[in-house]
Amino acid sequence: MDNNLLIIHGGGPTAVLNASLYGAVLAAKKSGCVDHIYGANNGTGGLLREELICLDDYSPEQLKLLTVTPGSAIGTSRDAIWQEDYDAMVPILEKHHIRYVLFNGGNGTMDTCGKLHKTCAASGKEICVMGIPKTTDNDIAVTDHSPGFGSAARFMAASAQELCADVRSLPIHVVVMEASGRNAGWITAAAALAGEKGYGPDLIYLPERAFDEDAFIRDVEELLKQKSGIVVVASEGLHDAQGNPVVKPIFKTERATYFGDVSSHLANLVIDRLGYKARGEKPGLLGRASIAWQSPVDRDEAILAGEMACEAAIRGESGKMVAFRRVSDEPYQMTPFLVDIDEVMMYERTMPDEFINARGNGVTDAFLKWCRPLIGEPLPDMISFNRMSGRK
Amino acid sequence: MDNNLLIIHGGGPTAVLNASLYGAVLAAKKSGCVDHIYGANNGTGGLLREELICLDDYSPEQLKLLTVTPGSAIGTSRDAIWQEDYDAMVPILEKHHIRYVLFNGGNGTMDTCGKLHKTCAASGKEICVMGIPKTTDNDIAVTDHSPGFGSAARFMAASAQELCADVRSLPIHVVVMEASGRNAGWITAAAALAGEKGYGPDLIYLPERAFDEDAFIRDVEELLKQKSGIVVVASEGLHDAQGNPVVKPIFKTERATYFGDVSSHLANLVIDRLGYKARGEKPGLLGRASIAWQSPVDRDEAILAGEMACEAAIRGESGKMVAFRRVSDEPYQMTPFLVDIDEVMMYERTMPDEFINARGNGVTDAFLKWCRPLIGEPLPDMISFNRMSGRK
Repeated sequence: MDNNLLIIHGGGPTAVLNASLYGAVLAAKKSGCVDHIYGANNGTGGLLREELICLDDYSPEQLKLLTVTPGSAIGTSRDAIWQEDYDAMVPILEKHHIRYVLFNGGNGTMDTCGKLHKTCAASGKEICVMGIPKTTDNDIAVTDHSPGFGSAARFMAASAQELCADVRSLPIHVVVMEASGRNAGWITAAAALAGEKGYGPDLIYLPERAFDEDAFIRDVEELLKQKSGIVVVASEGLHDAQGNPVVKPIFKTERATYFGDVSSHLANLVIDRLGYKARGEKPGLLGRASIAWQSPVDRDEAILAGEMACEAAIRGESGKMVAFRRVSDEPYQMTPFLVDIDEVMMYERTMPDEFINARGNGVTDAFLKWCRPLIGEPLPDMISFNRMSGRK
Repeated sequence: MDNNLLIIHGGGPTAVLNASLYGAVLAAKKSGCVDHIYGANNGTGGLLREELICLDDYSPEQLKLLTVTPGSAIGTSRDAIWQEDYDAMVPILEKHHIRYVLFNGGNGTMDTCGKLHKTCAASGKEICVMGIPKTTDNDIAVTDHSPGFGSAARFMAASAQELCADVRSLPIHVVVMEASGRNAGWITAAAALAGEKGYGPDLIYLPERAFDEDAFIRDVEELLKQKSGIVVVASEGLHDAQGNPVVKPIFKTERATYFGDVSSHLANLVIDRLGYKARGEKPGLLGRASIAWQSPVDRDEAILAGEMACEAAIRGESGKMVAFRRVSDEPYQMTPFLVDIDEVMMYERTMPDEFINARGNGVTDAFLKWCRPLIGEPLPDMISFNRMSGRK
């Protein structure tokens, strides 16, 4: 009887989601004890619909491209899963001789992973279900960080650096760049790493702090006394002290309320209240799909997490997720380990106080030290002339 | 008496504006007949304020960094210049023994360049004034294309590719990416090059065509019958048949009216009228500041244009701009030449009809053939699994 492996993606892609898929496929092939490797087409729903993508016959060269392909090569979803779905999955897994299931995703997906593990265990089936962490937002508990974050952080830091070099060239104006992470400010905060090359953003607003429009306007006004071009990086999830989004709802449909962009809202505030030129930028999904700014450390760790989850499942582990423990910041050292899914399911990890400055408009050195190794390589060098060096 | 060179930047930066500066500085040093090299701090205003940045003492290694530094290393501006300003510039140039002036900029800057040349000539001063073309929007007349465009095009094509790989991973939704170029659709159109790697945008809307919201909604609806994730690329300058911007004004100040973003406007239209999930992205200034997606052809041509303008000024040419003539698409061959500034001043070049498809929602093969060599290198390879390859 066959021993097959199934990989399932959940939630939004990252720049290294396919790198973990690569690691898992490689480990399965190397093990010599996996007959067929499948991907669930478009997440858990693909399993329920028995849409299994066979990954057996791709060449090593083709598979290697997974490490530089953004998105999910097997598709993903945000399907809500109920207990009857888990019950339905077990006979499908048995029918296709799937003994190993790897879930790659964030908090919601780890919840699914844990529940399928429990359903399999309760029904006495020998199916091992393992979790691979994935999130750009870095909000998964227990692990020091998750694959996907380092690349999103590198994109944000590099983009802030480039934006600052551009903005500094021109007369007085303010540019607000919006960063992903509705409840957790990790990606927004990573923009501060651009400062280490001399082109850092001037103000950083995180969703971990209530946003005060008056304080923001005062911050900008004060800075404009010292310099001409100001770059602000703001989380998409900014809210006021009462927890209300700072952006106004644009319109409602039956299902949801739609809000404007934080970036243009803050830019408009500057124009309206200070009379300065301002504009908002929102790279949005580009920040999680950028291969140009993929962090090599993140990519390698993503591959490792995929390999490790696969190897663990093959040796009989189940109901666990691969996690990272920080051993040292400089030189950067990390030890991977397995954690019970119960410890990570549905907990959301936000930035600790010691990573946020006292005024709530920037980050601390402790954050920079923690984040620096994750972007993988220093940002590029740039030249900055002494603009007032005078004539000879 | 000294023979000095002054370089002046005008308008918004590009990813290769500093590369042209590099070319000019290199040519000046190589000529052996330039005593001091100055940059005007923040554009023409810097000349009027006599803020001259001395570039003599930077090492070759430092100067080389200009080729990978976005923005303007000497600063730029959008100052309006009057005849009295030109008259004021001549004695300042004489005072600082400046015999060669290089203007690097777009249509407006070439106008300034031509007028300073005429003012110098009329006053009988032996000051040579030359133009280096620069624009991401590619709207300068006569030249086949301008330095700055190739990199903006490469950014847009690569971003469209990455975005499409991401969007294709998920269940039904629509993403609209906004591209720069208010009146000229060149950058927007360049997104189509992503299609050559199998990840092209589905719809492209250019400012050269009146935008019809009903036709847009029909286009999206039709496509959603065939595929789940749709990527739309739209110019920031879309307007209706009457010439009115498709986005509504958000608010007015004394000086100007502020409009919302085209990207979020179109995304909201999809949500509202079709009920599908949609979002807008606006990389904005990142598209002209990206070194990661800098086109090597564009960079080399920018250096060449800087060198050539400098050499021409030194041998006594004045009132001319460096321009490019396309010799061949495949293999790509281009010949630089000098054109009288009068022929390019203040003309805006938009996309010709033969580059736009009949339905006005995409580009033609002729455009792809023209644009392809300018992005410098093919886009990265990615892997695309056969998502319905079935189980074994």
